[in-house]
Amino acid sequence: MLSTLDRSHAQPHQLPHHDGSPLYVSDLSPAPGDRVRVRVRVPESFGVVASVHVRSTPDQEPRFGAATLLGAQGGWQWWEAGVAVDNPVTGYRFLITLDDGSHWWLNAAGVHDIETLDSADFKLVSHPAAPDWASSSVIYQIFPDRFGRSPAADLRQAPAWGLPAAWEDEVEQLPPGRSHQFYGGDLDGVIAHLDHLERLGVTLLYLTPVFPGGSNHRYDASSFHEVDPLLGGDEALVRLVGAAHERGFKIIGDLTSNHSGNRHEWFRAAHRTPGAAESAFYYWLDEQQDDYEAWLGVPALPKFNWNSVELRTRFIEGPDSVVGKWLRKPYNLDGWRIDVANMTGRLGGEDLNAEVRQTIRRTMIEANPDTILLAESTNDASGDFQGDAWHGAMTYTTFTRPVWSWLSKPDSPSPYFGLPYGTIPQSDGRQFVEAHTRFTAGYPWRTRLSTMNALDTHDTPRFRTHAIDGGVPVAFGLSATLPGLPVVFAGDEFGLVGEDGEHSRTPMPWDTAAEPDVAATIDLYAELIRLRTGHPALNGGGMRWLHVGADVLVYVREAEEESVLLMAARSACEVTLPEGAVAGAATRLLGAAELTEETGGIRLTADGPSFTAWALPGARAPKR
Amino acid sequence: MLSTLDRSHAQPHQLPHHDGSPLYVSDLSPAPGDRVRVRVRVPESFGVVASVHVRSTPDQEPRFGAATLLGAQGGWQWWEAGVAVDNPVTGYRFLITLDDGSHWWLNAAGVHDIETLDSADFKLVSHPAAPDWASSSVIYQIFPDRFGRSPAADLRQAPAWGLPAAWEDEVEQLPPGRSHQFYGGDLDGVIAHLDHLERLGVTLLYLTPVFPGGSNHRYDASSFHEVDPLLGGDEALVRLVGAAHERGFKIIGDLTSNHSGNRHEWFRAAHRTPGAAESAFYYWLDEQQDDYEAWLGVPALPKFNWNSVELRTRFIEGPDSVVGKWLRKPYNLDGWRIDVANMTGRLGGEDLNAEVRQTIRRTMIEANPDTILLAESTNDASGDFQGDAWHGAMTYTTFTRPVWSWLSKPDSPSPYFGLPYGTIPQSDGRQFVEAHTRFTAGYPWRTRLSTMNALDTHDTPRFRTHAIDGGVPVAFGLSATLPGLPVVFAGDEFGLVGEDGEHSRTPMPWDTAAEPDVAATIDLYAELIRLRTGHPALNGGGMRWLHVGADVLVYVREAEEESVLLMAARSACEVTLPEGAVAGAATRLLGAAELTEETGGIRLTADGPSFTAWALPGARAPKR
Repeated sequence: MLSTLDRSHAQPHQLPHHDGSPLYVSDLSPAPGDRVRVRVRVPESFGVVASVHVRSTPDQEPRFGAATLLGAQGGWQWWEAGVAVDNPVTGYRFLITLDDGSHWWLNAAGVHDIETLDSADFKLVSHPAAPDWASSSVIYQIFPDRFGRSPAADLRQAPAWGLPAAWEDEVEQLPPGRSHQFYGGDLDGVIAHLDHLERLGVTLLYLTPVFPGGSNHRYDASSFHEVDPLLGGDEALVRLVGAAHERGFKIIGDLTSNHSGNRHEWFRAAHRTPGAAESAFYYWLDEQQDDYEAWLGVPALPKFNWNSVELRTRFIEGPDSVVGKWLRKPYNLDGWRIDVANMTGRLGGEDLNAEVRQTIRRTMIEANPDTILLAESTNDASGDFQGDAWHGAMTYTTFTRPVWSWLSKPDSPSPYFGLPYGTIPQSDGRQFVEAHTRFTAGYPWRTRLSTMNALDTHDTPRFRTHAIDGGVPVAFGLSATLPGLPVVFAGDEFGLVGEDGEHSRTPMPWDTAAEPDVAATIDLYAELIRLRTGHPALNGGGMRWLHVGADVLVYVREAEEESVLLMAARSACEVTLPEGAVAGAATRLLGAAELTEETGGIRLTADGPSFTAWALPGARAPKR
Repeated sequence: MLSTLDRSHAQPHQLPHHDGSPLYVSDLSPAPGDRVRVRVRVPESFGVVASVHVRSTPDQEPRFGAATLLGAQGGWQWWEAGVAVDNPVTGYRFLITLDDGSHWWLNAAGVHDIETLDSADFKLVSHPAAPDWASSSVIYQIFPDRFGRSPAADLRQAPAWGLPAAWEDEVEQLPPGRSHQFYGGDLDGVIAHLDHLERLGVTLLYLTPVFPGGSNHRYDASSFHEVDPLLGGDEALVRLVGAAHERGFKIIGDLTSNHSGNRHEWFRAAHRTPGAAESAFYYWLDEQQDDYEAWLGVPALPKFNWNSVELRTRFIEGPDSVVGKWLRKPYNLDGWRIDVANMTGRLGGEDLNAEVRQTIRRTMIEANPDTILLAESTNDASGDFQGDAWHGAMTYTTFTRPVWSWLSKPDSPSPYFGLPYGTIPQSDGRQFVEAHTRFTAGYPWRTRLSTMNALDTHDTPRFRTHAIDGGVPVAFGLSATLPGLPVVFAGDEFGLVGEDGEHSRTPMPWDTAAEPDVAATIDLYAELIRLRTGHPALNGGGMRWLHVGADVLVYVREAEEESVLLMAARSACEVTLPEGAVAGAATRLLGAAELTEETGGIRLTADGPSFTAWALPGARAPKR
């Protein structure tokens, strides 16, 4: 038995566990009023259990229910209780009382010896769920100007805003090149490289904006009604989506719900034109409609005013709105990534964010329910991501920054996600797990499964730039196997580096693909992606940390048919796990660490930075 | 200098500090758009500071500002930065970077070596503030049936619902006595004992409901338009408020916004009467309007449906509504405590809580802005208590349960606030502080100052029932000196006990007041209340923990004119504080612990359970 102090500082395999996966929850998409059975496992070494209760808060008043013992197996007791789904988001947590009189609360943030906050409760959600394929997606992010050029691109004139660049030119971080170098990638250029993506094994292509704008990133849309002719126009999108679907890819677009460009047809109609039909679409600071609210004060990006019913009608409400149109024939996009979702509809004393996001998702369900809705919220996203609209977050708090801190070289100067650290902060494995846990604990399980585990994006330096030697396989291994969606920012698999978001928007170096280093990196990505897509436990399976050390993390994803044991090491190390921490014989799937069976447990040994996976027998709760 | 590990496990006097008090915040009631200066102090022993930044999140996007060094004094560096009040609630936190490359976040939950959640940011609030007197109130809770009987009471008949009881009768915990014993206390009976309250030194009288109902607690109102004639009717309330005001007391009432009684005139008009004007006031489960939603399914308490505009008009909206009427002449109540505020307006997929609470406060400001609005939310209250309406919470998470756990006898059987612990859980001082911190970290500072630090209420056992020997002075000392409002539930000062909420509704044993034990307890309460009301630092001053031990808590409340050092010990103990932890010579105000000046610091020694306070010189930030 552990002492009270030991329990507070125990390794996670010594602690009670629950998560939102089918191993522990009888119904992941309950209807309002349903009763869901939830199970918790308690290691016998934790203590002698006197009782287990589940606490939920219907209409925000606590209600307790007693759990019953299902049985014991492999050193664990399993308890089960019912939770009524009284609210669209129904929080619950467990209270475990031991016969020594100690009481332990278990919620999504872990095990506690004091009471806990409602915000970190486990959550059942009765809002409509994302499609089944959402949480098993592997995302590939494409910045269209930099991915591939079709022959037609050679025939196009550079736009007035563009500074023509040759594919081999270095990306310029500073003006005038910044945002305006024009490499001329297009959508048919994406089609030309679908073989590569198929070999890589990704399943969901995410295109940054394809609407026309005044920059190479096109986040300053001048229209949402046509695909930029520089990318091949509407027909090219139809061709791309068709080709992608033929090969089994899903493909999503990118919408700016916070702002348009100042060249946008709506903005131009209203700017300095009091009385224009689009006047109410923006926040004007004077009666002449000259000055206006803009994203972080950038005049090119006037902020939308979502009080406008007409704006909602044109943009987000109903199948004929912008949101609906591109999900329907002939375009058939499989969903949206929403830009600056966190600021959308928020200004000073006004907060229309929930209305906007819920309207967007309602429209998507009407237009094409088999779609995914991801949203950018780069910091603490938990407030807006409770399952009422956004399926998952593009955030840097849950995975990206924790993994950078754990696996970057010390003293690396970096524009670190806009935070004024100066250099990339350094952390150990304990801090990685605490940060990952802290920022995911507020999410419902299903939101966690659809949240992007990106190493980098078009807005950040590339992870490899400052990674420790051997760090990339470890980092992408974590991306591929932790709950959430693995993300490859196009070019990562070619081993590209980039010093900031601009610099990372590298044209794809297709002709290096056969170079040994590059080929090895592509193979590494493909192998880890195949690991992910080939093992259902890595998509929706339970997530249980087993060992957290400064230099090593060991965890298991558990499902009924098969479980997968993972070891991420940033240096040579050895971990011993007692019998019962994981059950059954392990078979190596990939990676170099050694697993040795010993009396009373297993020993894992890594001789340097490495990521290793083993298959394990499936996990089931005992039957009553 | 501390090592990284040491910093994570340091005593609080070794850590950077900020709170919402004037020592650290230039404007506690900023207007939208204002710029507020915020200051943080960093002990020199913490490390060499390379930079300090403040982070806020206008429209939910992070923004960083550099702090500048104000100066150093007494072993502390003080840094200052500006925060723009862009949203009604503007969160901010500090990032402290040391020259060893380590980064430390400071928010309302403490010091962290990983990033932190927005919900625990410090907060500036531009919603209208509570009156100045709110946070310096000492609450005295009166249950009218049990406080005092005027001569007129003898002339009244017991009501049909009542089982007449003599003042000396034991309160019956079970039916039929439960809720129906009628002791016949009345409002003129309160007037008769104002001398006692004045001697005690309390400043704010809180009356549980005075509207007529079908029980002795009157939370099942049959009308909100008259004071129960059994209590003396409207005139008695006018007399009581007048008498209280004459002596300088504030006095507030109690409203049930979640439900009425099933004898309520509105409910009777609508029950089984489709088409009645009041039909929309409740949630009917059938067309005949027979069955209905009720508080926790109790048929006597039908739940209000706040979709009804007419209900809002009659009850909460505008000066002529119930909410407004009783705050105006001739009644002049000084505010409301709202019952079951957490469930109000919430049912299944519907959540009108924010609308209801904001309407209530708007009406109060219209009717009489010099009023306080407290609201019952007995568990995690942070979500609803962000300063848009409720000034403070009647909750058991921030203070009540933590203090019970620290200062109750082991193995005490108790109906512990509805939690299925069986006995009162035991904790040490670290857990007390962690729980207090965890549940207050989500509040704006001003909400924390107006939140009730009750040892017990009419809904709980009385604290003394299971307190360790000598525990009451320690517990009420904490209530009187931690941020928040001290609360005396009538009779606590007579040393009463009570086994559950019903049993605690003890008729006041006035004739025992002169018994030595009782007189000593009354004196103890009066002494601690005078400590509170006589030292402004204890009302709005800063709150800094200095030492947290299993058996002892030391903290200081700091203000410009004077600071107060407090030591709460549950057993004999000794604490050493280094120079700089507190500044200047200490003068004992009350209590028995010894303070000795030593080379390099001070030593505090308690020889048993005790609560001790010392005056200290005031604290100021250095001037630039």
